Amino acid sequence: MKDAHQLTVFLLAVGFMLLTARLLAELFSKIKQPAIIGEIIGGIILGPTLLGNLFPGFYNYVFPETGSFSTVLEGITSLAVVMLLIISGLEINLNLVLKQKKPAFYTSTLGMVVPFALGFGISWLYPEWFGMGNEDLRLVFALFMGTAMSISALPVIARTLMDMNLIRTEIGVIIIASAIVNDLFGWAIFSVVLGMMGADKTGGKPFLEQIGITFAFLIFMLVFLRNIIDKVLNYIQENLTFPGATISFIFVLGFFSAALTEWIGIHTIFGAFIAGVAIGDTPVLKEKIRDVINQFVTNIFAPLFFISIGLRVNFAAHFDLPVVLLVLVIAFAGKITGSGIGAYLGGFRAADSAVIGFGMNSRGAMEIILGLLALEAGLINEKIFVALVIMALITSVGSAPFMSYFLKFSRKRKKFAWLLEPAQVYYTDLTAKEEIIRMLSGRAAPLISQNEKTVYDAVMQREQLIPTGIANGLAIPHAKMNVQKPVALLAVNKSEIDFEASDGNGCSIIVLLITPEKDPEIQLNLLSDIVKNFRTSQDTEELKALSSGHSVVNFLRKRSES
Amino acid sequence: MKDAHQLTVFLLAVGFMLLTARLLAELFSKIKQPAIIGEIIGGIILGPTLLGNLFPGFYNYVFPETGSFSTVLEGITSLAVVMLLIISGLEINLNLVLKQKKPAFYTSTLGMVVPFALGFGISWLYPEWFGMGNEDLRLVFALFMGTAMSISALPVIARTLMDMNLIRTEIGVIIIASAIVNDLFGWAIFSVVLGMMGADKTGGKPFLEQIGITFAFLIFMLVFLRNIIDKVLNYIQENLTFPGATISFIFVLGFFSAALTEWIGIHTIFGAFIAGVAIGDTPVLKEKIRDVINQFVTNIFAPLFFISIGLRVNFAAHFDLPVVLLVLVIAFAGKITGSGIGAYLGGFRAADSAVIGFGMNSRGAMEIILGLLALEAGLINEKIFVALVIMALITSVGSAPFMSYFLKFSRKRKKFAWLLEPAQVYYTDLTAKEEIIRMLSGRAAPLISQNEKTVYDAVMQREQLIPTGIANGLAIPHAKMNVQKPVALLAVNKSEIDFEASDGNGCSIIVLLITPEKDPEIQLNLLSDIVKNFRTSQDTEELKALSSGHSVVNFLRKRSES
Repeated sequence: MKDAHQLTVFLLAVGFMLLTARLLAELFSKIKQPAIIGEIIGGIILGPTLLGNLFPGFYNYVFPETGSFSTVLEGITSLAVVMLLIISGLEINLNLVLKQKKPAFYTSTLGMVVPFALGFGISWLYPEWFGMGNEDLRLVFALFMGTAMSISALPVIARTLMDMNLIRTEIGVIIIASAIVNDLFGWAIFSVVLGMMGADKTGGKPFLEQIGITFAFLIFMLVFLRNIIDKVLNYIQENLTFPGATISFIFVLGFFSAALTEWIGIHTIFGAFIAGVAIGDTPVLKEKIRDVINQFVTNIFAPLFFISIGLRVNFAAHFDLPVVLLVLVIAFAGKITGSGIGAYLGGFRAADSAVIGFGMNSRGAMEIILGLLALEAGLINEKIFVALVIMALITSVGSAPFMSYFLKFSRKRKKFAWLLEPAQVYYTDLTAKEEIIRMLSGRAAPLISQNEKTVYDAVMQREQLIPTGIANGLAIPHAKMNVQKPVALLAVNKSEIDFEASDGNGCSIIVLLITPEKDPEIQLNLLSDIVKNFRTSQDTEELKALSSGHSVVNFLRKRSES
Repeated sequence: MKDAHQLTVFLLAVGFMLLTARLLAELFSKIKQPAIIGEIIGGIILGPTLLGNLFPGFYNYVFPETGSFSTVLEGITSLAVVMLLIISGLEINLNLVLKQKKPAFYTSTLGMVVPFALGFGISWLYPEWFGMGNEDLRLVFALFMGTAMSISALPVIARTLMDMNLIRTEIGVIIIASAIVNDLFGWAIFSVVLGMMGADKTGGKPFLEQIGITFAFLIFMLVFLRNIIDKVLNYIQENLTFPGATISFIFVLGFFSAALTEWIGIHTIFGAFIAGVAIGDTPVLKEKIRDVINQFVTNIFAPLFFISIGLRVNFAAHFDLPVVLLVLVIAFAGKITGSGIGAYLGGFRAADSAVIGFGMNSRGAMEIILGLLALEAGLINEKIFVALVIMALITSVGSAPFMSYFLKFSRKRKKFAWLLEPAQVYYTDLTAKEEIIRMLSGRAAPLISQNEKTVYDAVMQREQLIPTGIANGLAIPHAKMNVQKPVALLAVNKSEIDFEASDGNGCSIIVLLITPEKDPEIQLNLLSDIVKNFRTSQDTEELKALSSGHSVVNFLRKRSES
């Protein structure tokens, strides 16, 4: 900038933006919230909503609306959005999705279709509820609202899962895989919608052609170009300046891919995102590269972008409670029920499905980028934009507490009382240890996709090491096997069988426990949890007095909860 | 950017800039040249000089002169310059300067005063030689040219020293320390000059007041604020998000300091640089922070800035051979003689002083930033700017070969024949080992600021361990002592003295060798180098036949060269 005064004001503005973003981000990180929440709220504080209202003189001095400041800031935030999409793409691991086909398919499909349908339907039928009256835009607006409801925010989701120590669990992996699929399709659909918007104005391409181009681009980048990227990246990392040349390569490819998508009629954003995916998916990319790029983009460019949101829009003036509530309800209802039901159909139990549903609910940065682009394209008004930003914040903040709540139920299930199902309780009248173990092994085998002999041999091998009779009539023959989940079966035997229990008595309650080899901890937890149910011989007598699987399971669950 | 087409072109432009910068930088790094050379030349290729000339259609499409592109690019490059100055400041280690007081003082002072005087004098007397005719600007123009000639480029200098394996040597440390002092004063003077320029236009502050403000700011930042920075940085690194919060802190402080300097009437650049110095000098700053910031600034912002130089100026149209040659001559002559003489006065020998002189000659990025700011301020014309850029490139590229050339002479000096001076050759007629050692110790003592007894005791202690008679009449009594440089004295004794040489003969050539304790290697090198001169008894006879110190030294040097 040639004018020294303009440069000064520009530096002051950027300084204040970074400072406010950092202070608020640190504040929110102390209460375990993602940085983006603080950065958005920092922008609202620094923008016309608060600072501009309270100290208009200072506000107009630091953030002048005229002059080159706003142009330059807009340029930098455009670059920031492209960079954010590139690093979002880098985080995506397509192999993870391919490994989790069935549950990820259900969760992501229903997690998109249901909120999309809700968002599309309501916006199509009642655009006036959102303050939109333009008949020409009715279809694209409804398509956009559907997309806006169905997108998710991988970075915030991943962060939440990390904070909750869930990232490596089965639930965590499914949430990540489904969010990846959601993001891929979400941005593809959004590109198509924006392309149609262009079509309406300039006579561009119709819906199906848009979709065709988008998928052609996807296949070109992720199938054809990926192999080339692998080779080029490998060459660069081995032969050129490290990490400089790789960093340049990533951004150059990202920018060119973004420009290419715009040129073929889909949005830049999608090109940047897919370039990130194509690069991030190669096995050769070194960790240091991701780290340097992530640190700089998330600490300099992202805060400038998120703060600038608050600078652009007056959140007080455009806050419309009905619109905000409407958006919130559609977003919550659509995403949680969609993803939750998807997870349930994919084989998860109800509590886990609820955890997954809420886990998928975070919209974070992605919703805000989507909303801003739609606002700039004239697709939505400021009221809807403000509602989308608020929805993005609330869904991001709200995920963790709801997940924790349902996780309690999910964890309960890892107790013996919830592991045992009524159909897995048997009334027997056998006399030898081998007989009862053979019988329970036979029943367990189909549940864990093994044959009877394998199960019997594994359990007997353990039994011969140290007999598993405990006390008070309880024996727990057990084994670790190559299975996915623990399985327990309970037999109430008429007479007592000798399991060499420590109190010298025979055993009439025999629990067969099979746990996964790869999770030795759960065996210990379950063994001690089973023993807790039979502290006295009276416990054993009470259980023996019951006459059905259902009553046994209810009896155990009741005691476990108290 | 709201206009999708503008965004596409902007992304294309940035992509091409980064790509070209990287390709050229890699090419130049293969021939051991700093990246900046490639980046500047890349800009000239991509700019109006070449691409604009050959393919004007493509050039005007990607780098449009109208529209928001140039404004945004200017904003980003302004930010890049500020960031470059912050990281240049971070590299500066003030303790290094304080430890090397005397030689650094002479080298940096003369290394500034001489080129400044040359640049100032010629520009003041003959501004028309540079195509400058404005009488009002005569003084500021001459002051600027003086500053432009006297500044140096620490990053390029450090890189060259690293490539040449000199960075940890005495010469390397002096070059770095002097370049630091040069940069500090150079930017301070430049700020004053730009301030005066403002004064001429707006009736601002006069020369002395400018200097007063500049030094007050320096003291405020480097003395008063430094302690606070230490504490704040320590708190941030221990308690807030790492490395994010520290990265934000550095840029926020840098931007605010830059804005502050502009506000008190000195240039933003100086504030950014000094903020970098103040932060970089704290012992608590972690290495990872420097790394992330350096990687991103040098791989994204710096290339954009250096490429943009070529985009702004047509190097062919504004190339004026006489001006280029004039600038080159002043720059080379002023800096090399100034720094060289300074180093010589600081206690270095001639060849080392020449190495230091050429080492200080690189102007690199700093000259280009300085030139651009002067061009933007209307202080110089395009011809001078082009000349300054070419000078920056040639001085940066030329340093290493010249340094290598003089280093050969400097290394020669580490041989015995160059260590021995004519005045250190004695003709004696003594009979006992103790007598000759006492006599030589007495002569050596004042040369190494020790007393005779200390030297004698050290040498005799070594002598009693194993006698130092070699063969062919040569003995080398020696010791390691707390001295800076090795010292050798040679005595030609009339009769032979018993040093228990391996051939059983007495010795008549006695070399006393004192070497620094901290450099055990040089003792071994010199001992073997001395022995080489006396391979046969004929060698000894030839030397004994000579009759003066001068003839002895010349005889040895001649043989050593052959």
